[in-house]
Amino acid sequence: VHSGLGEFEIIKRYFEREARDPAVILGVGDDAAVIDVDGPLVVAVDTLVEGRHFPPTLPPESVGHRSLAVNLSDLAAMGARPRWACLALTLPKADPDWLEAFAAGFFELASRFGVDLVGGDTTRGPLIISVQLLGTIESTSALTRAGGRPGDDVYVTGSLGDAAAALALLTGQESDNADLPSELMHRFAYPEPRVDMGLGLSALAHSAIDVSDGLVADLGHICERSRCGAELAVEKLPLSTALLGRFPLDAARQFALTGGDDYELCFTAAPEAAEAIEQLADSLNLTLTSIGRLTDGDRLDVQLGGRSLDIGVAGYAHF
Amino acid sequence: VHSGLGEFEIIKRYFEREARDPAVILGVGDDAAVIDVDGPLVVAVDTLVEGRHFPPTLPPESVGHRSLAVNLSDLAAMGARPRWACLALTLPKADPDWLEAFAAGFFELASRFGVDLVGGDTTRGPLIISVQLLGTIESTSALTRAGGRPGDDVYVTGSLGDAAAALALLTGQESDNADLPSELMHRFAYPEPRVDMGLGLSALAHSAIDVSDGLVADLGHICERSRCGAELAVEKLPLSTALLGRFPLDAARQFALTGGDDYELCFTAAPEAAEAIEQLADSLNLTLTSIGRLTDGDRLDVQLGGRSLDIGVAGYAHF
Repeated sequence: VHSGLGEFEIIKRYFEREARDPAVILGVGDDAAVIDVDGPLVVAVDTLVEGRHFPPTLPPESVGHRSLAVNLSDLAAMGARPRWACLALTLPKADPDWLEAFAAGFFELASRFGVDLVGGDTTRGPLIISVQLLGTIESTSALTRAGGRPGDDVYVTGSLGDAAAALALLTGQESDNADLPSELMHRFAYPEPRVDMGLGLSALAHSAIDVSDGLVADLGHICERSRCGAELAVEKLPLSTALLGRFPLDAARQFALTGGDDYELCFTAAPEAAEAIEQLADSLNLTLTSIGRLTDGDRLDVQLGGRSLDIGVAGYAHF
Repeated sequence: VHSGLGEFEIIKRYFEREARDPAVILGVGDDAAVIDVDGPLVVAVDTLVEGRHFPPTLPPESVGHRSLAVNLSDLAAMGARPRWACLALTLPKADPDWLEAFAAGFFELASRFGVDLVGGDTTRGPLIISVQLLGTIESTSALTRAGGRPGDDVYVTGSLGDAAAALALLTGQESDNADLPSELMHRFAYPEPRVDMGLGLSALAHSAIDVSDGLVADLGHICERSRCGAELAVEKLPLSTALLGRFPLDAARQFALTGGDDYELCFTAAPEAAEAIEQLADSLNLTLTSIGRLTDGDRLDVQLGGRSLDIGVAGYAHF
């Protein structure tokens, strides 16, 4: 008997919810969950570490939202439908207010995308959240990083650099953090995974990745896995009004090129697919920008005013 | 460019291995893995926190082994066949020696049970390892905590209390830690998940759980989920020679009743199944002990010399 909330109480009170998906045969509460799966299963896992991926001041609703959003974004990049999640939550203490807010942020996003929490565990330790997400493929095959072909157009959804700019302001890397615009803060705290766009792209695009480590690093992964190069025009990068209102153009572009955390999709497709892809984005009310093309080279060529830049930073390095 | 190993190098060098299971369509290296699944999928996740679940002095081979073993044990308790794992690894620094030894411990166990590592991520932070394991069911349904019936015999595999005794000696909760017997240390450092026993039990047992939080707590979970009580005879608890050689009988029994970390199976079955269950254990060269029975009561009655004990500790509480 102990005064705080025990592991089993935490799970029961905050995380044991009736699964809505009839494919869930057994949910939270046993040694493992059991799900009825028929066909290709997509599996992603992503971890958030307090003080590394988000500042300790981030509201728990946002921590809950982001811990699922980063995984939803991985599945979006695979053109998969997210279905079932497991949550491994390591917590310094069992604070009911924190847990309630965290669960609210997590489940708001989960229910919006039809995801059931089927398992997980809670342990005591530094605040680290690891979510594992399972999804299914409705197309003939998954969208990967490896399918890009020279001549493909390169696209990104939404706008880039907002979340990285917010994080820089939040963590004081930028000197004046007194006036963090709420639009930028929202982009960091509540990233919107592009799940429906990914589902639509699974039949239209050749390759895709989500922008989590920075555009240069992530487009670089597509190039590496697709064994091709790319040209990217800095002038074309989609920059939000909020970002341009707070930072000079140069700094905004730097955030867009190398900042992670936006969780937009970067993908490539044949020029013939352009019209269908624009229609898809329109139907989802999503901004879409063509920023360059894949080449038969072996490097990522970032151009400004038609001249190659030496970028010198390869996105976000985790170590 | 940075001097240490980056996330992508760590994954490539230590964790990107060719999957041997043809069901793995896409393994480590993209936004997510893709697996061809047909039928019920079993999903478990378990986390180990340095300083909480194991002492910082534990060799990295053992950390790798245990991080997978605890999940294999969950699947064993479901009567499932383990197939695919994801690894979320949070590390204070990228030490090649540590990573190599950790991976050796992880993959030795993985390959022995035919498990492919299909995904994961590495992040920087305090040492925390979260493994998510997927498996399949070959029987008609999974073995759960909920199927126990009054009159069932209660069994445990192997011996109990060894790992808890080792941990107490390792962490200095026991005064004299100079002579930690190597058998006890091995039981803590390299627990052997009872996967084959679980697979065999799926057609024979009514309910099962793995002993990870301590026998009293874990048998309590079976009682709660099966809506029944249990009687347990302390005299019958299987205690190893190593444990009895190092501790007085009373202390040994206490470790067996409340110590976790043994990762033996506790399960219940109809008396008519006794012979088949004994034959199964014999064929696997596994010690099996009947320690009591399920009752139509609502409490776990722990008896010594025919009299009920007041245990007072409910196994391992995570908070």
